Amino acid sequence: MKHYLTINDIDSLPKWVEEARIIKENPYHFQNLGKNKTLCLLFFNNSLRTRLSTQKAALHLGIQVMTMNFGKEGWTLEFGEGTVMNQGTSEHIKEAAHVVSQYCDILAIRAFAGLKNKEKDEAEEILNGFVKYASIPIVNMESSTAHPLQALADAITLAEHRPKSRLKVVLSWAPHPKALPHAVANSFVKMMKLQDAEFVITHPEGYELDSKITQGCQIEHNQDKALQNADFVYVKNWSSYSDYGKVFHQDASWMMTQEKLGNAQFMHCLPVRRNVVVEDTVLDGPKSLVIEQANNRTFAAQIVLKKLLESL
Amino acid sequence: MKHYLTINDIDSLPKWVEEARIIKENPYHFQNLGKNKTLCLLFFNNSLRTRLSTQKAALHLGIQVMTMNFGKEGWTLEFGEGTVMNQGTSEHIKEAAHVVSQYCDILAIRAFAGLKNKEKDEAEEILNGFVKYASIPIVNMESSTAHPLQALADAITLAEHRPKSRLKVVLSWAPHPKALPHAVANSFVKMMKLQDAEFVITHPEGYELDSKITQGCQIEHNQDKALQNADFVYVKNWSSYSDYGKVFHQDASWMMTQEKLGNAQFMHCLPVRRNVVVEDTVLDGPKSLVIEQANNRTFAAQIVLKKLLESL
Amino acid sequence: MKHYLTINDIDSLPKWVEEARIIKENPYHFQNLGKNKTLCLLFFNNSLRTRLSTQKAALHLGIQVMTMNFGKEGWTLEFGEGTVMNQGTSEHIKEAAHVVSQYCDILAIRAFAGLKNKEKDEAEEILNGFVKYASIPIVNMESSTAHPLQALADAITLAEHRPKSRLKVVLSWAPHPKALPHAVANSFVKMMKLQDAEFVITHPEGYELDSKITQGCQIEHNQDKALQNADFVYVKNWSSYSDYGKVFHQDASWMMTQEKLGNAQFMHCLPVRRNVVVEDTVLDGPKSLVIEQANNRTFAAQIVLKKLLESL
Repeated sequence: MKHYLTINDIDSLPKWVEEARIIKENPYHFQNLGKNKTLCLLFFNNSLRTRLSTQKAALHLGIQVMTMNFGKEGWTLEFGEGTVMNQGTSEHIKEAAHVVSQYCDILAIRAFAGLKNKEKDEAEEILNGFVKYASIPIVNMESSTAHPLQALADAITLAEHRPKSRLKVVLSWAPHPKALPHAVANSFVKMMKLQDAEFVITHPEGYELDSKITQGCQIEHNQDKALQNADFVYVKNWSSYSDYGKVFHQDASWMMTQEKLGNAQFMHCLPVRRNVVVEDTVLDGPKSLVIEQANNRTFAAQIVLKKLLESL
Repeated sequence: MKHYLTINDIDSLPKWVEEARIIKENPYHFQNLGKNKTLCLLFFNNSLRTRLSTQKAALHLGIQVMTMNFGKEGWTLEFGEGTVMNQGTSEHIKEAAHVVSQYCDILAIRAFAGLKNKEKDEAEEILNGFVKYASIPIVNMESSTAHPLQALADAITLAEHRPKSRLKVVLSWAPHPKALPHAVANSFVKMMKLQDAEFVITHPEGYELDSKITQGCQIEHNQDKALQNADFVYVKNWSSYSDYGKVFHQDASWMMTQEKLGNAQFMHCLPVRRNVVVEDTVLDGPKSLVIEQANNRTFAAQIVLKKLLESL
Repeated sequence: MKHYLTINDIDSLPKWVEEARIIKENPYHFQNLGKNKTLCLLFFNNSLRTRLSTQKAALHLGIQVMTMNFGKEGWTLEFGEGTVMNQGTSEHIKEAAHVVSQYCDILAIRAFAGLKNKEKDEAEEILNGFVKYASIPIVNMESSTAHPLQALADAITLAEHRPKSRLKVVLSWAPHPKALPHAVANSFVKMMKLQDAEFVITHPEGYELDSKITQGCQIEHNQDKALQNADFVYVKNWSSYSDYGKVFHQDASWMMTQEKLGNAQFMHCLPVRRNVVVEDTVLDGPKSLVIEQANNRTFAAQIVLKKLLESL
């Protein structure tokens, strides 16, 4: 593996999940692996879980960490080719990526979708700019279109809690007051396509995800029907993809409730808005896996960092 | 000890002070104690001494540190029960505290009083929210109503400089252009109640501290009278407690001067506004202990972290 | 060496450059030297290269690092003597410097020129304030008037790429939309005065640097003439020094081009505005040394930190 940019960079999801679960049993077992290696975390957006869990994973492996809030502690990057840089951008991605590559061994980047311009977001100019010009492995800590560390943590969580036999997983859209990106949903869908499971996506009409990603997936606009006999319900808001970044409605009837959930286990990537996305009863009840999903972020990051260290 | 939230979490102040003084002689003596342990510092407010001395204490003990400016690098937390989170808060303390607990072994939190709403400040929603929902020990790095790391450092400083026989300590209010919290004064008072010493609090009328805290303490509104025969004078501004958060006056006659101080030793928690709170002559003179108080912040934090590590 | 404040703190530039080149071959060779030592980085201004390379250098030497964005995470310092601090400043440099000295072994500071008041900038109140009141070695990570870590990295880069025999180096002013400080140019000039080389400074009239620094240097206002037979061309913008901080013009004809550069090697401290300061062809061509200069920032910092550790 050269980089960890999307869930497709995983060569065998079952093997990675198995290995992550072994690491979780003894997190410091490989703490000599990262000796004299440095991970740099560049945040173009805010973060809680990702910031702490990725650092923790590095510490488990004995990797030194340098963290930088790029926009607040640095300056604005230029991505255009041939641009006359006499406006707001102070440094070109070409220089920034080359230079940062010299100060660390692995580079992790968080850069969210702006949700104003679909083409620009899908170009992933920050993440792909670093991939293009850096000389070291890059880890995606959530980009415009993907959050593969989250999806890997979700896969670990599913493996820990799945029933022995059959498996039905539902991804259910939820209302939210703000326009949110598609990254978490995209990566979850991609990850589910690698699972031996029945998988249904449910959302109001107009909230279709990128069809290139959901291709082959079962989409059901009737939430009740979708939720029938579900083992796991993954709830997440996203803004419109076709009418890019728009919030059509915040229909409260789509909020996840204990009644709708039934016996299914509840998943969400967090942060979650209580009583908007999901009611308190669900989060405070025994079927919620959200805290364990967050815990598994450490081990998802750790398996990724371990694989990258081994390939250095 | 489960947490270090107030000075009352200390089981024996003299023993802690003695132990801190021994650690100070050889700060790296216990540097294997923190192996494979992680301390997370969450700052909801700015900091200089606390930020650096707490990190330094952790490094002395071999503890790994992750620092986060919660408001600037994260988002706004919700504390209400049953709130429909469709406004400005993005994550509930329930999730945040549970999640962060999984990424570290000890959690230290700084969250100042807002000084707008006494009831809200006294509820200590941030600190107590983490205490309620986190599963790991919490260290108070200054909350709305208490700054027990400062008071412990002050106790160490007093022990290092106290005369053999009698001891008189005065806490003297000082003018300040801004409304300041009561945390430092509260914890100093609580700490002094554990000392074998004469202790007098002096302030203008209207600046009474919380009577639940000063109960049993000698209060003298005549500063000159209070200062007579003092060995140590601890100077600190605070805003009104009864008319919560108000600044009635900034009467310069309450500023500490060399003349008033006489032979007493001068203490202040820093940062201090020169020639407003205290005149230059005092700070630049041989009787000032402020630099040593700041130095002892490291050893106060270190004894607290050591106790918590031992109880893990 | 007591501090590293300007290039003049280097006792023998050739020896330091030689030693840095040896360290570069085996960066972790001295990783026990910094055991139980702590470096504190205080940033009063933003940074990318300096932030990461100085941390990396410390990690190579086994030094623990604490980083603080002073203005954003702390408060405003007072520098005046005898000031009544009833306005915007919360802590005097006297206390701040003394206190921080107790939490680390070496202190590195970045504090740029404000470019409003020449006298104030040249007084270097932040850097010199720490030098005056701190009790530990100070490293200049770019102050109002000097950037000696950059100039040392440049000296290493020159040594790595210089032809065996003759050497001509040109410092060429370039246009820029914003008013920039003189620190990089000043330190480069001072460093070049220690080199056995022909050295020419070229800039439009009105952009003369401080004559106390350029004294004895060849200054040529005709850029073409200056560039003739150059081996290295160091390009950098600076604002007017005589009409302090002003930008007279941004004459695009002073931009560095491949045609002007000829066979010379190109240097710049970065960040650089493409097609304003220098055209793409140069930066993307084989004669550009900018990435290597940035790489050498790590080894410049490392030799400085090593010397300071050895003198503790």
